Amino acid sequence: MQRMSQLFTKTRREPPKDEQSRNAELLIQAGFLHKEMAGVYTYLPLGLRVFKKIEHIIREEMNNIGGQEVLLTTLQDPTLWQKSGRWDDAVVDNWFKSKLASGGEVGIANTHEEPLTALLTHFVSSYKDLPLYIYQFQTKFRNELRAKSGIMRTREFVMKDLYSFSRSEEEFKQFYEQCAEAYMKIFQRVGLGDITYRTCAAGGSFTTGFTDEFQTLNKAGEDTIYVDKEKKIAINKEIYTDENLSKLGLRKDALVEEKSIEVGNIFPLGMKYAEVMGLHFRDEGGNEKPVIMGSYGIGLGRLLGTTVEVFADDKGIVWPASIAPYDAHMVVLDGKDEEAKEIIQNMERGGVEVLYDDRPDVSAGEKFADADLIGIPWRIVVSKRTVEKGVVELRNRSDGEVNMLSGSEALLRVMNSNA
Amino acid sequence: MQRMSQLFTKTRREPPKDEQSRNAELLIQAGFLHKEMAGVYTYLPLGLRVFKKIEHIIREEMNNIGGQEVLLTTLQDPTLWQKSGRWDDAVVDNWFKSKLASGGEVGIANTHEEPLTALLTHFVSSYKDLPLYIYQFQTKFRNELRAKSGIMRTREFVMKDLYSFSRSEEEFKQFYEQCAEAYMKIFQRVGLGDITYRTCAAGGSFTTGFTDEFQTLNKAGEDTIYVDKEKKIAINKEIYTDENLSKLGLRKDALVEEKSIEVGNIFPLGMKYAEVMGLHFRDEGGNEKPVIMGSYGIGLGRLLGTTVEVFADDKGIVWPASIAPYDAHMVVLDGKDEEAKEIIQNMERGGVEVLYDDRPDVSAGEKFADADLIGIPWRIVVSKRTVEKGVVELRNRSDGEVNMLSGSEALLRVMNSNA
Repeated sequence: MQRMSQLFTKTRREPPKDEQSRNAELLIQAGFLHKEMAGVYTYLPLGLRVFKKIEHIIREEMNNIGGQEVLLTTLQDPTLWQKSGRWDDAVVDNWFKSKLASGGEVGIANTHEEPLTALLTHFVSSYKDLPLYIYQFQTKFRNELRAKSGIMRTREFVMKDLYSFSRSEEEFKQFYEQCAEAYMKIFQRVGLGDITYRTCAAGGSFTTGFTDEFQTLNKAGEDTIYVDKEKKIAINKEIYTDENLSKLGLRKDALVEEKSIEVGNIFPLGMKYAEVMGLHFRDEGGNEKPVIMGSYGIGLGRLLGTTVEVFADDKGIVWPASIAPYDAHMVVLDGKDEEAKEIIQNMERGGVEVLYDDRPDVSAGEKFADADLIGIPWRIVVSKRTVEKGVVELRNRSDGEVNMLSGSEALLRVMNSNA
Repeated sequence: MQRMSQLFTKTRREPPKDEQSRNAELLIQAGFLHKEMAGVYTYLPLGLRVFKKIEHIIREEMNNIGGQEVLLTTLQDPTLWQKSGRWDDAVVDNWFKSKLASGGEVGIANTHEEPLTALLTHFVSSYKDLPLYIYQFQTKFRNELRAKSGIMRTREFVMKDLYSFSRSEEEFKQFYEQCAEAYMKIFQRVGLGDITYRTCAAGGSFTTGFTDEFQTLNKAGEDTIYVDKEKKIAINKEIYTDENLSKLGLRKDALVEEKSIEVGNIFPLGMKYAEVMGLHFRDEGGNEKPVIMGSYGIGLGRLLGTTVEVFADDKGIVWPASIAPYDAHMVVLDGKDEEAKEIIQNMERGGVEVLYDDRPDVSAGEKFADADLIGIPWRIVVSKRTVEKGVVELRNRSDGEVNMLSGSEALLRVMNSNA
């Protein structure tokens, strides 16, 4: 149980005036985030809890497809990036670079293809050492000229980036599809599955062929996509041509134009990095070959911000149960603290995490408004009235349904919604 | 279970030639770390597991004393640091700084007093909002001129830093002692308690009075301390004067000179940061006062490296059970994989984590050498000989004791050693 009287953050009556995006407005107003500077946000206790739940879901799904977790470094040796041609600011325009006290420069990592490929040259030599799927949760730094989408596009953000290392095109494609499925599971688990589409997109800087984005329908999105809702796939406006539609087997009249947020992407990298870094393996016939790579990214803050944009209503945030900072928000009124604590103890025995609004000098109205703003799936009220009736008031944040239930009935309802 | 045949790291026959410290030599040779550049190390899967176990222990103890976890940012707004006078390279000589694409500079955080104090001005106004204890696990960057102590002193490292915010000297001191006790619990839990001393030291850059360091006795240490083993306290050589000894009630003839590694430190910060950042509160009489602060740090990589330095022997690393990457290291020989897997399944039901050396084309001798190098507390061998006798061979990494036991006896032995 976290007592709100002891939680150091407070909600604000008004959203901050310097934010242009709904996600940052709400997350700051409700005390999940603090803005350090444009595009740079601190995670406060409630925000960090949501962040860690998202991280946990992604980690489980990455481990399920054979991912091995590492933690690469932020400081980057320029010589690695010179090999791939990506050190030059004319090629990659969002580097943060710094001087090294002992002489020379260091990069502040914006991605990790180069160091991971170089690292693997120490461990991979034979076909027996492959395939490998290696991932991390690591902070990326991008020197964006503008940052105005709240936590959707920031200068500093944690990304889950996985890189695949395969022996053949077939082996690569098999994992690529497996990872695409794992991504859909992740979006399903965080509550965005029904409105998230695998979307065919342009190659970007990584490759010349198509790549896949995962796009969540939302009017706040920066992207425009054409969605085939029946086939559950989409195509990015960037590559929306008759030729590409026919390549992809899509028919114009089945497509709907939508605004969307890119919540993940997967890229074939081909042999580019393996070739420049010298990551080769000997195949069963003794021939030396470069490793075939792929890249698979999900930005955790972006995903968190997207769930806020998608589910929030005019009263505040509405968290999906799987990533809510707490499962239940207990509001105690009329000094019924002992009764509330007993209910909470039972809930905690059932594995339910409770935020407890025990603030003595705050009105019922303010407590309810804060509960709506913070957006925990279930609000429980214990008051003089409920205690007299031997019940609690259980309210669902998403649909507003209110029920008067015994403590154990309420517990069951909350537990079932988490399952 | 993690199969070694699938783990992408491999042990090396020889330690790397470019390391001057035993901790980095062993951690690289055994596949826990990879060196990116001087003072910058990637955590590989085994290393990351140890790191996360240390993090978990520290988090539990910080939560136990009322700590609230946040995640501050790496990118720092210079204006905050100009207020405290710590932006200037002449004052703080180990900044990494970078240009911002939109104009101006950013700092790459080396500590977090300024941003956290500034953040709290949004949440603290009354004595009712205090005291507060706020912590994070965050990467610090220090532009060290030299880096040669392996992971003991690096340019990039994760630190648990907690800051206390109190209303009075008494309230501050009470928490300071409580945190000192929590620190001793942490060092006890990671296995260093018996040789770690609370050590009186000079104020450093933070304050003019004494501060407390936690020093672990080890010949690889950079510090020299004088230890009173009976009283379980010590004094740093820096302040070893007759005057200070008498202030601290220490007698010269009870002290022994020792080399040691600083594994933690706690500092009074006074009102310095509160005053420059404007962090004030109104007391019960309505008077405005600056908040009294303290700072409490533990470097996770430093602690990890220290356990390696302290416990390693000539065969490799020896992990304390509480932070070992796995609890047991199963070596299968003579193709007895089915039998080994059955033992592992029972172990996992008992909550024991197993690294499984299932490599088919590696000799018994190499497998044993790797087990010694990696340093997991218990080695279990399943071979033709053990299967015939209906036992497993259980060997303790630390004292070398070998026992032939039934699978369930071995499980109990491993479980008990973890308790």
